[in-house]
Parts: sequence; structure tokens; C-alpha cells
Amino acid sequence: MAKALPVSPLAPKGGFPDLPVIDGVRFATVEAGVRYKGRTDVMLATLAPGTTLAGTFTRSKTRAAPVLDCQDKIGIDSPQGAAILVNSGNANAFTGTEGVTAVRAITAGVARELGIPETRVFTSSTGVIGEPLPHDRVTAALARLRENLSDGAIAQAARAIMTTDTFPKGSTRSIQIDGKTVSIAGIAKGSGMIQPDMATMLVYIFTDAKIARGDLQPLVSDLCDKTFNCITVDSDTSTSDTLLVAATGASGVDVAGNDAFSDALCEVMDDLAKQVVRDGEGATKFVTVRITGATDREDARKVAFSIANSPLVKTAIAGEDPNWGRVVMAVGKSGAEADRDRLAIRFGDVEVAKDGRISPDYSEADAAAHMKGEEVTISVDLGLGDGAATVFTCDLTAQYIAINADYRS
Amino acid sequence: MAKALPVSPLAPKGGFPDLPVIDGVRFATVEAGVRYKGRTDVMLATLAPGTTLAGTFTRSKTRAAPVLDCQDKIGIDSPQGAAILVNSGNANAFTGTEGVTAVRAITAGVARELGIPETRVFTSSTGVIGEPLPHDRVTAALARLRENLSDGAIAQAARAIMTTDTFPKGSTRSIQIDGKTVSIAGIAKGSGMIQPDMATMLVYIFTDAKIARGDLQPLVSDLCDKTFNCITVDSDTSTSDTLLVAATGASGVDVAGNDAFSDALCEVMDDLAKQVVRDGEGATKFVTVRITGATDREDARKVAFSIANSPLVKTAIAGEDPNWGRVVMAVGKSGAEADRDRLAIRFGDVEVAKDGRISPDYSEADAAAHMKGEEVTISVDLGLGDGAATVFTCDLTAQYIAINADYRS
Repeated sequence: MAKALPVSPLAPKGGFPDLPVIDGVRFATVEAGVRYKGRTDVMLATLAPGTTLAGTFTRSKTRAAPVLDCQDKIGIDSPQGAAILVNSGNANAFTGTEGVTAVRAITAGVARELGIPETRVFTSSTGVIGEPLPHDRVTAALARLRENLSDGAIAQAARAIMTTDTFPKGSTRSIQIDGKTVSIAGIAKGSGMIQPDMATMLVYIFTDAKIARGDLQPLVSDLCDKTFNCITVDSDTSTSDTLLVAATGASGVDVAGNDAFSDALCEVMDDLAKQVVRDGEGATKFVTVRITGATDREDARKVAFSIANSPLVKTAIAGEDPNWGRVVMAVGKSGAEADRDRLAIRFGDVEVAKDGRISPDYSEADAAAHMKGEEVTISVDLGLGDGAATVFTCDLTAQYIAINADYRS
Repeated sequence: MAKALPVSPLAPKGGFPDLPVIDGVRFATVEAGVRYKGRTDVMLATLAPGTTLAGTFTRSKTRAAPVLDCQDKIGIDSPQGAAILVNSGNANAFTGTEGVTAVRAITAGVARELGIPETRVFTSSTGVIGEPLPHDRVTAALARLRENLSDGAIAQAARAIMTTDTFPKGSTRSIQIDGKTVSIAGIAKGSGMIQPDMATMLVYIFTDAKIARGDLQPLVSDLCDKTFNCITVDSDTSTSDTLLVAATGASGVDVAGNDAFSDALCEVMDDLAKQVVRDGEGATKFVTVRITGATDREDARKVAFSIANSPLVKTAIAGEDPNWGRVVMAVGKSGAEADRDRLAIRFGDVEVAKDGRISPDYSEADAAAHMKGEEVTISVDLGLGDGAATVFTCDLTAQYIAINADYRS
């Protein structure tokens, strides 16, 4: 991880977006030396009293100590201030009781430093699995973090949480409700070990909207299902996936049940999820897999992920080869209901196959032209029912192997 | 596919084994020009009257026309002679009614040429999916095939069915029963698109044992579950997977219920299955994943395949990195029952983790030394019950990407 990877060719062209200040949220970052040298690796976000929090977490059976700690706390209502602390370089996963001790040391330290209850301190750790987290390096940096808190440092926070990411990920939306502005700003990290099963790697979203925890949580869970749970880089599910949404209420605008707010939050989550795919390890193509005509949504998702995770489909995309036979294979192995003779397949706008065989008008040249673009869309209609799902992924290249064959060394 | 790939470094050191003549079986191969130039691409095996046949086939929902045809016929008892014809270069999969027409043309041609019923002709096709099979090239070669039939040509047959395989695969066992010799000889092909779901790519096993179809089929299904259904190269399941076992009865030895015969057949199937893994596309390491202590066998298989198919585990193995954190991750995402704090992990004989954390005596140097070998064993004990399973796979290298990013072009 000492090597600097080149920035993904799929990175947003405009660079990191201008994120607005969210009233009630402050950030600080520090070089704590957890593992990396010469870069920030801890970020602290403080949340004003009255902030409500909601979150979703990995369902991995081997989830990390900080995730379990967050899950214990996320359902607790409290009017007091709160904090989120994240370190990169070490995931504090599969570290037994030492892992629990490390989380407690950090949350107790943050609580003491900020004068808030420990139940209001949420932590995440991301990086190598299985090595003890040197938590003393984190706690030793807490005073410096508190002194450096600033409401404008969200971009620095996005950088401090990166691991194999090649660019920091941010997204924002602002909407007008009753003549007042409500803002949402979010950051994320994630590049490999990406097939979230509740949330993606690490995502933190802040808003000045006013919304009770009981309203925020179901909204976040629902939107997570439509965004982060629809992406995959390599079919591997992190032990640390965490999404936290914090609503400070500072705008004074109550957004419970407000569609404009839900839409804006969904857009921020969708944007961040797609940025994670765009930073997929070794990715050169952004791939959309659209399934229609499945028996139900569950089956549509099965087929979509079967295609999106197939090494043979992903390598064909890397090779710019409209190898639709491999799409047929992936449909067949998915476990979903399928009738070979009703399948229709498109690459972009090019109809490749229909009624279970190659289309009479199929032009391999047209399909190959679509594959040469940076964005590839594979659409499959199963011809059975109304079930539909769309999943986003990237191609599988030799660079993925290079990154992962020597990540730790 | 025009490029010659270097022979896998994991190929059996002794080369293709000496396979015995199986009385009642004859082989012929031919250059029919289905797709490849300058090599044989069709093999014909003829089976003497009285031969019983059993088989297992892919459960893919998009399985190919020849597979469906075999499935229709495999349950039919007949005292007449039989034949197996296999072409490489084109899978005749996802070819609609044309695919059915092609199968019928070939089976009718073989039946006519050999004077046997069409229901006794079994065909397989392997190669590119989705392109019409030029079946006239196959039928045009049938007379030549019949003229060249020889009981010693099984090695040539193993070569004619190769696609991305870098070496032909064969295996044999002979046993003594009641003072008589019973022989088994089998051939297989397979290298990519390997996670069989009933059988592997294409496998043909011949024996002079005497056994009724009703006894042979359950034995083959059971052994298939213990051998071919325990391997994976890339988690992708072929549309053409076929295993056929033909017992000519020429030895006169009835083997129904004979353990020595079952064991010998199991060994041949196990050997061929492992040879398919050893020819896994781009493979440089042969990997054994052993799971014990699972709630049941089903869960043990889930965990084993989750590890064996994880791109992050496979790339770590390619990089000779004892990255056991990724093993933990793969256990966590498998969907099987698991308790993080009971997990124990070994690389070879090196205990890496115990009771959910790194072992006190863990030596990274010892684990790294194990990873440098050509054979890597990952053992995971879940500490929950008696469920166990072992799966065989290979590593994931840049060569896999190179092979598959331009297979068709």
C-alpha cells in the first residue's frame, strides 16, 4: 500500500465536488501513523446536540468490532452531541477481545475529549484485517483532532479514510423546502472487497435537515437497498461496511415524509455508490447491468449479480469483446427462473439476442463499438414477469490482480 | 484461441498417463474444421452392444442443445451398441431451434453410419457459445471417423476435445475382482468456466465392468458429488457440463455394490477433476480448501466455495501472501452459520488463527513459506458442528485475465 496507484480512469472528471458546510458538523484529520506514513489516517466528525443518526451495516458473520459497537448504539435516541471517528490502515477486524478493547479505548477517549456520552461515539476502522489496531496511536491524537475541528474540512476527511481508493469520494445536493435550504453532503471510501450487503465500505452523510431517528432509519435502510446494495466490484463483502447518516436539524426544516428530501438523499447515496464502482480496483469500464422480465425482483437481482460478478463476463468487458455467450452462461448459473428461449440481450442499444438465439439483425461491429466506450450497458430481458433490477459494476483487469496479489507486502 | 498457451505449471509431471484398452470401446478423431485449424476437433467413441451408460449434466438454466438431448436419452435401457461424439470449437449453446437441428443431424448421421438407434447416440459440443454449429462439417467427417476407429486411440480423443486446455487429461485404475481384472479409463477437458453443478465440462469414463444402468447411475451421481462438484476455477458454470460413464461389461465381472470398484471409479473421477483444476486458466497454484466444524455439510460447502471463489483470496494466493484476513472475510460473506470467535485457520500445517484471533504462536514466515509451494492448503474449522467439505481450486493471476479478455478475438 506504499505504492501510489494511478487515479482511476473512471474518476469523476470534475474532481472532488465543492461540498457545502453542514451547520452543526465539524471535521478534523490527523496523521496518527496507524499504518500509513506521510498521510492523514484518522478523521473525526463532531455532531451538534440534537443530531439524529441512522445507519446500515454489513451482514457479514465475521464483522469487525467497531461495526458491532455501532450496531449496539445506533438505535439509541439522545439529545446530546455525537461524534464519528474513522481510522484507515487497520480494520480492527478478527482481532478478538483486543479488538473490543481497542474500540472501547477510542470511544472512551473521544467521549472524554468532547464531553459527550460514550454511547454517542461511533467508530469505523478500515484497512488490513486480523492485525491488532494500535489504538494508543489514535487516542494520542485526540487532543490534536479536537483543536483542529473546523466546519470546512470535509474534503480532508474524505482523504483521511482512503485505503486502496485512488480518489476521494464526495457528493452533495441542496433542496428548497418552504423557502428554506436543506443541504446534504456525504463522503465515502471503497475500491475493493466491494459487494455490500447492507452498506458499502464506509459512507458518512451529513444533512442539516430535521428528522427523528425513527423516521430517518427506515428511509436510510430503504435507500441503501436501492443504491449501495446494487453495486459490486469483486463479489467480496467487507467485514467493515458501514453507512451513517447524521441529521443535525440546524436548518430547522422538518423533512419527515418529504419526497424532495428522500430524492435528494437517494441521489447523494447513488452518486457515492457509483463513485465506489468508478474506483473499483483496476477498473477501466463502468458497467450497468439491467435486468427486466424476471419472475420477481429477487430473481432479477440474482441474475444481475450473477452477470456483474462473473469473471468471464468482466474479463470480456475488459477486452472490449461483446461476448454475449458469457452473459447467457451467467443467466443460466444464477439460480433464478429463466427460459433460454425467451431471453433477449442488448449491449447498449444493440440487440444481440432475442427468443433464445442471436438476433437476425445483430451487428457484431455495432456491439463492439459500444464495448469500446468507457460506459458499457448490458440489458437482459428474461421474458417471464415484471421483476426488474439494475446493478453497477466494473470490468476485471490485470491491474486488479496486480493490486491484490501484493496488497499487504 | 489461435494462440498456443503454455502448458500449465501444475500439469501432472508424468504427462498423459498410459491408458489401458477397454474392451468394447473404440475411438477415432478427425480434423473437421468446425472452428480450429490444424488440429483434431471431433472425437467418436463407439461402445459395444450391452454397454450401460450413466451420466450427470449441468443444471444451468441455459444448457446447450446436446446436453438436453443427452438428458432425454440417458435413462433409456437398450442392449444395442452406442456412441459418443464430441466436437470442440463450438458449444452449440444458445442456438435456438438451429441448435436442435444440428444435434439431430449429427445423431442421425452417427446412427446411420454405425447401424445403431439414434437414441443410443450421445453428443457434446464445447467452445464458443451462441454461434450456430456448422454441423455439416461434422457429418461430412463421419465416414472417415468410422474408418479410423481403433481401440488404442483414447489419448488422441483426449486431445480432440480440448479448448483452452493446455494439456490433455486422462486417468486410469485397474482392480482385481474374483481373480479377474476390471479396468477404468477416463478422459476430461476443462480449464475455464469451471464450477460444475452436476459434472464438470466434459468427462468420459469407460470401463469393462459389468453393471446395470439402474446401479451405475446412482453410483455415478454420488461420486460426482464428491469429485467434480467439489472443484471451481472461476465460479462460472458451463452451459455444457457433461459426465458420461460407459460400462461395456466385457470383463464379465459384475461390480454392482462392489466397494473396490466404487473406490477405483471415485479415484479416476477425483484425479480427472483435479487435473481440470490443475489446468485452471492462468493457474500457478493448486489450492485445497478444507472446512470442518460446520453446522452441516451444506454450510461447509458454502464456506469452502466462498473462500475458493473469492477473487481477493485467489489473488493473495497468486501473490504468495498468507493474507488470512481475506479468508475471514470469505467466511463472513458465505451465508453459512459462523461464530467469529470460534474460527480457527491453518495455512498448510501453520496455525494462523484460533478462537477468532491471530494465534499466539503464529509465524508469518512459516505461513509465507507454505504459500511459496505449488500446493497450498487452507483449513478452516468453524467450531460449531460436524459438517465438513473439501473443495479444490487454483489461484487467480493476470494470465487468467489475458486468456479471457481476448478469448474470442
